[in-house]
Amino acid sequence: MQICRTVKEIRAFVQQVRSRGGSVGLVPTMGYFHQGHLALMRRARESCDAVVVSIFVNPLQFGPQEDFARYPRDFARDAAMAEEAGVAAVFAPSAEEMYPSGFATHVEVGGLTDCLCGLSRPGHFRGVATVVAKLFNIVRPDRAFFGQKDAQQLLVVRRLAADLNMDLEIVVVPTVREADGLAMSSRNVYLEPEQRRAAVVLYQSLREAEEMVRGGERDAGRVRRKIEEMIAAVPEARIDYVEIRSLPALEPVQELDAPALLALAVRFGTTRLIDNTVLNGSAADL
Amino acid sequence: MQICRTVKEIRAFVQQVRSRGGSVGLVPTMGYFHQGHLALMRRARESCDAVVVSIFVNPLQFGPQEDFARYPRDFARDAAMAEEAGVAAVFAPSAEEMYPSGFATHVEVGGLTDCLCGLSRPGHFRGVATVVAKLFNIVRPDRAFFGQKDAQQLLVVRRLAADLNMDLEIVVVPTVREADGLAMSSRNVYLEPEQRRAAVVLYQSLREAEEMVRGGERDAGRVRRKIEEMIAAVPEARIDYVEIRSLPALEPVQELDAPALLALAVRFGTTRLIDNTVLNGSAADL
Repeated sequence: MQICRTVKEIRAFVQQVRSRGGSVGLVPTMGYFHQGHLALMRRARESCDAVVVSIFVNPLQFGPQEDFARYPRDFARDAAMAEEAGVAAVFAPSAEEMYPSGFATHVEVGGLTDCLCGLSRPGHFRGVATVVAKLFNIVRPDRAFFGQKDAQQLLVVRRLAADLNMDLEIVVVPTVREADGLAMSSRNVYLEPEQRRAAVVLYQSLREAEEMVRGGERDAGRVRRKIEEMIAAVPEARIDYVEIRSLPALEPVQELDAPALLALAVRFGTTRLIDNTVLNGSAADL
Repeated sequence: MQICRTVKEIRAFVQQVRSRGGSVGLVPTMGYFHQGHLALMRRARESCDAVVVSIFVNPLQFGPQEDFARYPRDFARDAAMAEEAGVAAVFAPSAEEMYPSGFATHVEVGGLTDCLCGLSRPGHFRGVATVVAKLFNIVRPDRAFFGQKDAQQLLVVRRLAADLNMDLEIVVVPTVREADGLAMSSRNVYLEPEQRRAAVVLYQSLREAEEMVRGGERDAGRVRRKIEEMIAAVPEARIDYVEIRSLPALEPVQELDAPALLALAVRFGTTRLIDNTVLNGSAADL
């Protein structure tokens, strides 16, 4: 497995793959791998000759009060896990390599980003869209792989790739969960033991919502209130948002007559966790 | 010469060139060709195996009060001129092809765009940056060719191409002028005869500024005031801006001790013309 620190190095690597007629898959990450990342890498391996994983904790997508500085990092462990997963190259640039002095360009996706995490994290999706546009242009993959857990990010990336005529396929991979249902996240390491136990309510509430809809419930407001009640009953949890939105435009939904995204963000102490499910559908509807 | 109306068609054309190992040059235009456009095409022919010219009057870069609707168009004449100039393919998409329903993404270049034409035309460079990013991704040229006349646009395009890691070379081609010195522009057709005669003051004032600097003048303010006086003495002319700015950052300049951009925008009736020169340097410093 090759480790590339510069744009020039990863381009040379990709060029080599291309010159042999090989296809390239990209898994963009912020590192500190868990089973969710490994599922992305495995899925990429299945459909691409060479898998590139980028590891970059992107300062542009963190707000000034957010956890950029303390975001967990362990490059040696990540590299070993990537190699084990059959990754061909890791692209791990410095912030200076990605945003050299004089950098002044941003990619902005409208509409989709003024709700859910876009409201709680102003500037977040602008940072995501900008770094993803850069990574796509640097690696020029045939396919890029994103997890369902960051559903809004996935929709933003799909939108920008289509709007800017980026010639690649965006593949969504279902959320990987712990044994008790908690969605895998690099931020789970922040949780105190009692917060960790309490956090299972997120999964339980999503399952409850699915049950309600499977049982015939069509009123999005009733589903949302039920979820809010379940989470509010857990003393460690503080709701940021619980929302049901249309796909793929993320518009507010009253009637549950089509696939819709139930998304939530909840704080446990200072740790903010997100999770989601597709009501009346599956990850394939994202 | 091939005429492509869709992204799919022009991509298939470029793919053909690539499969033969050929290089591709892109000349992005809004059509209604004059000698300035032809100079871009000829320059592209010199260094690329196949030249693609895009013709697209981009609604995104016109303000609501601007001349989008009346901007001159003559596709048949443009196609004939492009063929004559040795162009291999014209890409002339509809607005619907470039901005289909749901389009929501914009590319924004900071810093460079909050002065000169960026002040007079809010949103203009956002529209330019967005369409150029799209065209670069659609055609993926080895080189793209831009005229010196739109110097700020050139600097914005260079910046976005570097910032978004677009793997191509941006080539600047010097401004082509009429016999009396007026810079070629598709908008020159708007001018009434007496406005057309008066407009030569733009060229004359740029030459005067070059003379002053060649003669040892180092005070940017004095050069600027001299130009303003010359233009103000012409009754048909109404100054939008006359400014001297650093290269490539377009910061205000007091001392003329390095190459600097003298740029101006002047209205003749409802027609707004721009022109520029590089003091202490040449187009190569852009």
